[in-house]
Formats: sequence, C-alpha cells, structure tokens
Amino acid sequence: MKTNGKLFLVPTPLGENAAIPLPEYVLQTLGQLHYLVCERAKTSRQLLKTVPGERPIGSWNIEELNKRTADNELKALLQPALEGHDIGLLSEAGCPAVADPGARLVALAHQYSIQVVPLVGPSSILLALMASGLNGQRFCFQGYLPANRSELLGALKKSEQLSARHDQTQIYIETPYRNMAFIETALQALAPETRMCIAADLTLPTAWIYTTTIEQWKKITLPDLHKRPAIFLLHAKK
Amino acid sequence: MKTNGKLFLVPTPLGENAAIPLPEYVLQTLGQLHYLVCERAKTSRQLLKTVPGERPIGSWNIEELNKRTADNELKALLQPALEGHDIGLLSEAGCPAVADPGARLVALAHQYSIQVVPLVGPSSILLALMASGLNGQRFCFQGYLPANRSELLGALKKSEQLSARHDQTQIYIETPYRNMAFIETALQALAPETRMCIAADLTLPTAWIYTTTIEQWKKITLPDLHKRPAIFLLHAKK
Repeated sequence: MKTNGKLFLVPTPLGENAAIPLPEYVLQTLGQLHYLVCERAKTSRQLLKTVPGERPIGSWNIEELNKRTADNELKALLQPALEGHDIGLLSEAGCPAVADPGARLVALAHQYSIQVVPLVGPSSILLALMASGLNGQRFCFQGYLPANRSELLGALKKSEQLSARHDQTQIYIETPYRNMAFIETALQALAPETRMCIAADLTLPTAWIYTTTIEQWKKITLPDLHKRPAIFLLHAKK
Repeated sequence: MKTNGKLFLVPTPLGENAAIPLPEYVLQTLGQLHYLVCERAKTSRQLLKTVPGERPIGSWNIEELNKRTADNELKALLQPALEGHDIGLLSEAGCPAVADPGARLVALAHQYSIQVVPLVGPSSILLALMASGLNGQRFCFQGYLPANRSELLGALKKSEQLSARHDQTQIYIETPYRNMAFIETALQALAPETRMCIAADLTLPTAWIYTTTIEQWKKITLPDLHKRPAIFLLHAKK
C-alpha cells in the first residue's frame, strides 16, 4: 500500500522587509518540497527566491487556494499527497490556516488521513498577544469587526463586556487603511479603565507596540498607523 | 537622559527532545542578553547550555517569575531595563506571556515605557490551531476547564454552544495526567457532529494530531495520551 505524503503548514514572513528572519528549517523544508498550495502564487515565488540551493522557481508546482476556491476544488489540491508526495501550504503572510482560507484544506487532509505537520513561524496575532501584557491565559480572536461606524461602536462595546465577564483578552484585525478610524471609534466606545494594545508592523524594523488604558490613549499623540498592518487587543476591568 | 533597555520575549522549546529547533536568532538573542527572568531557572539553564559561544551559565543573571511572585516584586525584575540593560523573559515552554505568568511583567514594562520585543518561536496553542483544520478566523483559548467530572461535562457543553453560536474554534489545555479522563468526558458531553482535534507532543518526534467528529472519535482506538502534553480543540455545527 502506498503511503500518503504529508501536508506541511509553512509560515511566511509578515512583510517584505521583515527584520526577523524565517526560521532556517522553514526554508529548508520549502527546499525539499515540490508541491505547494499558496494563497497567492506571486508572493510565494518571492519567498522561494530566498530558499538556499538556487532551485529554479519553475521546479515548484504551485496551486492557489483563496477565498474564491470552491469546496469541490479542494480534493485536487491534495492529489499529490494521495500519490505519496509531500505538500506545503502557505499563507499570504504568517501562519497558514489561521485567519486565512487554508483551514479548509487542512480539514480535508484529516479526512483523507494525510498527516498534518505545522511548522513554527511568525503569527502577528500571537506576537501581539505576547507583547500586549494583557491576559494570555484566556483570549479570543474575533477577526474583523464591522466596518460601519455605528456597528463597530456596538461590536466594541459588546466585546468589552465579554472581556470583563470572562476575564479574557479580545483580539481583532482591521483593514490597514481603516486603522485610524478604528482607533478613533475605540476611544469613543470603550471605558476609560479598559486597557487597549495596538501592535503595528510586527517583526518589521518599524514595529510599534504599546498598551495603556483608554483614558491614557486619549491623552497621547497617536503614531500614524495608516496602511500599516496592525492588531488591536483589549482587556476590560470587571 | 538614560535610555531604557528592552524586554525581549524569548520563546523556548516545547520539550527536551524537540524535533524542531528553536529559530537561530532566538539563541543568538539569548547569547547577547545578560539579564533573564524565567518561570523556572533550572529549565532555562538547560536551554542556555545550547547557546552558541560557550558562555559560562553563571554569566547570565537569572531571576524567577512564577504564579507565586507577588505584584510588589515585579518592579525589581525590571530594574536592569530601567538602568539601560536589555532583559529576556522566558516561559517554562513555548511563548512567554501566553498561558503562563509572564504577562504581568510585560504589562508593567509598558507602564515604564520599556520597549517590548516579541520573538518568534513555538506555541503549542497556535500550532494546534493551524494543524486542526478548525476555524482559524475566529477562535477562543479557554485555558484549563474544571477538573471535576460533572463540572467539566457542563463546561464542555457550554463551550460547544459558544462555538456554534459564534462559529468559533474553542481551545483548551489539560494537565497531561488527566488527558484520557478529559477525552472520555468530551466524548460523552459533545454532539456526534461536533469536530474535535487532539494535538499531542507538538514539535516532538512523537507528535500526534488528528481531527474528526465526535461520532468518529467514539469508533476509533485512541492513542495512549497519558502524561503527554496535549491541546484540545472543538468546533460545533450551528
């Protein structure tokens, strides 16, 4: 009986000019793979250029998996593993299958008894949580909150209540061009004693992370976070 | 004016015989630090032996921070940074300030305007989430559930409801010697169509990760997970 290949979950840098290199064994693993499933092939090709050994980019078989990929297209992406070849799954930035469309492929791999091997690499959500100083014993990642201002206001208040009730850090991402509007709304929605962390440009030379109360945030000059990737975290007092 | 030192958040291996090495720059950073705050000095000294350069272990100044450390003892731990020296914060395993007592020190660092620098390394919670194939767009880490069987049963049912209501992956850890009791209770508490992932010995040569429905978990032979570090994740159908 043929043995299935494995599905490696391959983290990628959080930006083009990351100050923190990818762990060496991540690049080594990429160098050993021949089949990749990527959120965006163009970004992955940039990364493949940094793999030691100067393999021609064409020597990797690259398929795309994004939010437009239909369920009935997933099995074909796993076909190489069913034929005994290892596959690498890559996100656009950070850890695949976390806050990206890759989880569906991982789920299907389990159904076909394809072994899943997660590799260690950068996750903006986890780095932000570590660096926030907020509760790391209980935390909740909510993804994107609503873009509409009054809905966002309501969502932040509700999230603040959840944080207080469960003594839980609440975590969000925002589309980078909306960061400043998000912060403005948060300063209006949240209680003065609630602590908020803003973590921007994680792993980049321009990284900026700071946690303080809403009361204090209102008093300080905000850095310009327009279009800079950022994670927002809050922890409310009971 | 003197510039404060930085607080580096230094990840550590998830076990003594990890198959996946720590990123090289993590060891390099340790090699450049002189002040460390560790959950348990003994474990950290083992790691320091692997730092390139053969520095004598005594050349690191090691203080402990654990759950018995009082709030009024924290400031002294940051004193070197207030005097301009960088400090490294290390957990017993994995990423400091996530599911460990380190977050209080990070919070205080922000109060003293000490720059916090999170480094990339292994987190069993994040690796388990990636590898589970469960929803990585919304997830909630609950820490430990109650040990008492009937309370655990209730907590799991409640957690399953939250998962369904918010389309959210729920994540827990268990004291390793209680793993098998946890699983037995979960199989009793949860709905047949709820998906559960068990991720044990992450990054170790004996790593084992599998996701399927409760209905299927009841039919398969469970591996012996007694005393093996494990993360449990579930996602319930609406």
